[in-house]
Formats: sequence, structure tokens, C-alpha cells
Amino acid sequence: MEGTVNLLLLFDEDFQPDGTARLTGRRAQHAREVLKAEPGESLRVGRLNGLTGTGEVLENAPGLLHLRVELTDPPPPRAGVDLLLAIPRPKALKKVLPAVASLGVDRIVLVNAARVEKSYFDSKVLNEAFVRELLLQGLEQARDTRMPEVLIRERFRPFVEDELDAVFGPEPLRLLPHPPASLSLQARDITRATRVVLAIGPDGGWVPFEAQLLEAHGFLPFSLGPRILRVETAVPVLLGQVTLLKAPAP
Amino acid sequence: MEGTVNLLLLFDEDFQPDGTARLTGRRAQHAREVLKAEPGESLRVGRLNGLTGTGEVLENAPGLLHLRVELTDPPPPRAGVDLLLAIPRPKALKKVLPAVASLGVDRIVLVNAARVEKSYFDSKVLNEAFVRELLLQGLEQARDTRMPEVLIRERFRPFVEDELDAVFGPEPLRLLPHPPASLSLQARDITRATRVVLAIGPDGGWVPFEAQLLEAHGFLPFSLGPRILRVETAVPVLLGQVTLLKAPAP
Repeated sequence: MEGTVNLLLLFDEDFQPDGTARLTGRRAQHAREVLKAEPGESLRVGRLNGLTGTGEVLENAPGLLHLRVELTDPPPPRAGVDLLLAIPRPKALKKVLPAVASLGVDRIVLVNAARVEKSYFDSKVLNEAFVRELLLQGLEQARDTRMPEVLIRERFRPFVEDELDAVFGPEPLRLLPHPPASLSLQARDITRATRVVLAIGPDGGWVPFEAQLLEAHGFLPFSLGPRILRVETAVPVLLGQVTLLKAPAP
Repeated sequence: MEGTVNLLLLFDEDFQPDGTARLTGRRAQHAREVLKAEPGESLRVGRLNGLTGTGEVLENAPGLLHLRVELTDPPPPRAGVDLLLAIPRPKALKKVLPAVASLGVDRIVLVNAARVEKSYFDSKVLNEAFVRELLLQGLEQARDTRMPEVLIRERFRPFVEDELDAVFGPEPLRLLPHPPASLSLQARDITRATRVVLAIGPDGGWVPFEAQLLEAHGFLPFSLGPRILRVETAVPVLLGQVTLLKAPAP
């Protein structure tokens, strides 16, 4: 399994009428083979989209982990950031999705763009179950429980023109990292923004039409400096910078 | 091949007495199969550790790319950051090294730590040629020419006690991202630092002895917040944040 399980995620269907949780599959295997959790031991757990706490091991059998669960603490605060992300290469997406979930992004719209290869749509990486698995890895890593919402849109222009405002809402500051821009991120006073949407293009960048359409919809361009970064590097760099500068999420 | 070649790197041994460059191997293959560069076309090139410019294609034959080279421009400015990095899992190191090179880090010391698995030292990823290849990918991506210096040290304590000062020099601000710290990065006034060393621990973090030894050698701890990040996410996040806040490298 990829990733470190710093928190074992519990799903609604794991919960029994008596309040205990019965985990199967990958998570039971992990608890048995990696954590080697003995009855009586406490594991850090969290309920998907809910609270975190501890799970006392009642039984750790092959294929079944039975826990007495106590959920007491909220997950880490949200980053207050949404992403509009041109669909990256499948290998890059496999790196980006766990990272994005571990950084507490709320919403990811994966959108087509001129420089996105058509074949990426056929990739199994975009399969709903696979996307969910990659996001779960990020949550388990960061001890978060809140599953980011993912939308996949095959047509850029209709999404931006007809759907974008409804999806992201009116309040977030819209930011467009774009090499030709002259202003830096600091010059885009974001210290008072409690929510931000970042529009990150594909390797090679947004084409001029796409950047213009985003700017026409309120995205403020800024420069990343002279270095051209790969998408899987640019995403954590930008999320690190934005979350450092912006106001805490409400 | 991994990565995008936004700049074709030329090595000293490529240069002919008449000033033209003859490239072989992976780079010639890339120019022929991916760039499909025809005679007369200009490619963006850079000389390793030197200037960037253009290479006019004289011949693009199987296994040989012959260029007339004009080198006129400096590579992007340095980030002014060095890394002391506990040796990551081999899969993480394969992601981290290209990212670090693309972000303009000058020096990377890969050091053993209590939570580094012994088997990582036997990994082919730590092989000198392989490390160089990963760093070259990052330079080609970011249009940089400056190869980061890499040191590998099998013993943490002797490195910190006997070698660290000489390797990093006295002037950089030494920073230790460390979860138990209470101060944030902003509280560590780094806006006047022109050089920074970041000491990034393994997955699971530095053990208390290691963190204490680093603090005794001037590393200032700061908190990354409540989220536990994987090394391959933490490195670009932290480099993005530090390069955003610090003074430009001289």
C-alpha cells in the first residue's frame, strides 16, 4: 500500500448497531500486517467526514478488524482552498490527488484543456473508485476525515461559462498562476481572503484563450517566477504558498 | 523518459573544437522522437553549470544530434536554499530529487536518521549516476543549468557535529520544520535571510535526540500545522513557503 496510515478511516457501513466498527479489506490487512495491533491496543481512527478519536482493538483476525470506537476530536481545520486543475498526466494525477487531500483542499474540478491529451480521459486514474482511493490515502496520511469533492469536466469553456460560479461560489478569491503575468503572489493581496480558488494549468500551461476566459471570470493572474514546474511540483508549492499567505479558513 | 525537456542540457564533452555540440544517447533520442527537430530549427539549450541559449539543428540522425550553439543568457536565479534531508523511501526520493532540482536548491545532504530504514542505503536510487539523472530531469524541466551538489552521509551525529558547519557555512538561517514546535514559519522572521537551510526529517519525523541536536546547532524549529505530510509533499510545500518569504538570493 502507498502512504502512511496515520489515521484509520471508518466508513458508515463499518458501524454496527452496538456502536463498534468492523473493518474489512485493505484496512483490516494493514492493521494486521503493518500495525500488528493486538487486542486492547488503541489505534487512531476517524469517521469519514466526521470526528477523529481512538479505536480499541477487540479482535484483529485475518480480514476483519473489530474496534470499540470513541470519536471526540474534530479533524484538522480546512485549508479554505479549491482547485480548478487541468487534467494532469495519469502518473502526475496519482501523485497530486493524495497530496491535495493531505493538504485539506475542499473541492477539485478536473477539467479538460487544450494541452491535455485526449487519452487521459481513458485512464483508469480518472475512475471514480480509483480517485477515491487516492484521496483516502491523503486523508489517512494527514489524519483528516473530510473527503474532497471531485468533479470531472470534459469541456473547458462550458464549465467556465455556465458552471464555475455555481461550483465555487462568489466569495473565494480566484487566482491564476500564469507565467506571462508580471505580478507576484504577494502583490495579489490575499491576506484577507478566507477562501481561494487556484486554477492550475496542464504541463505547458493554459493556452491564451483559456487564460483569457479565466481572467474574464475574475481569475487574477500572478507569476510563479522564471522556473517552469511540473504539475505535481507546482500544486504543493502553490498550495503551500497560498495557505501560508491567506487568512485562516472560517 | 520522465519529465518535460524545456531545455536540452549540454555537457562539456559534447562540445567540439569548432564550438558545435554533438549529443548522443537519451538526449539525441528525445530530440529525434519527441521534439522531431529538423535541420535549421532552433532548440532551447543550456550548458551544464553555465549559460542558456539556442542550438540550431545541423543534423538530427539516429543517436546523434549536432547543434550550432549560442549561449547568451544566465539560468534562473538560485533559490538560496540548501536541504538537510533524512533519506526518504526510494519511491519518494525519485519524486523529491527532480522537484528539488527544478526549484533551484543548491545543496542536498541526504543523511541517515533513526526512522530511516537501513535498506534504503542499498537502493539503486542512491547510486550516483541515478541521482544525477533525476536531478538532470529537474533542471531540464525548469530550464536551469546549475546541478545541485549532493552529499550522502550514513551517520547523523558525526555529520551534524563535525561537518555541518563546514558544508552549509555560517550565514544561512537554519530552519527545522518540526510538529511539536509552537511557532509558525512566519514567526521565524526569515524575510531578511538571503540563504536558508531546511532540515526535513523522514516520514514519522526526527526522533527527539535528532531534533535536539539540530536545535543545539542553531536550527530554529517551527510548526507545519496539524497535518502530517509525506516527505514528497512536505519538500515542495516548504520550499514554496521559504522561497516566498525569504529575501532574494544574492
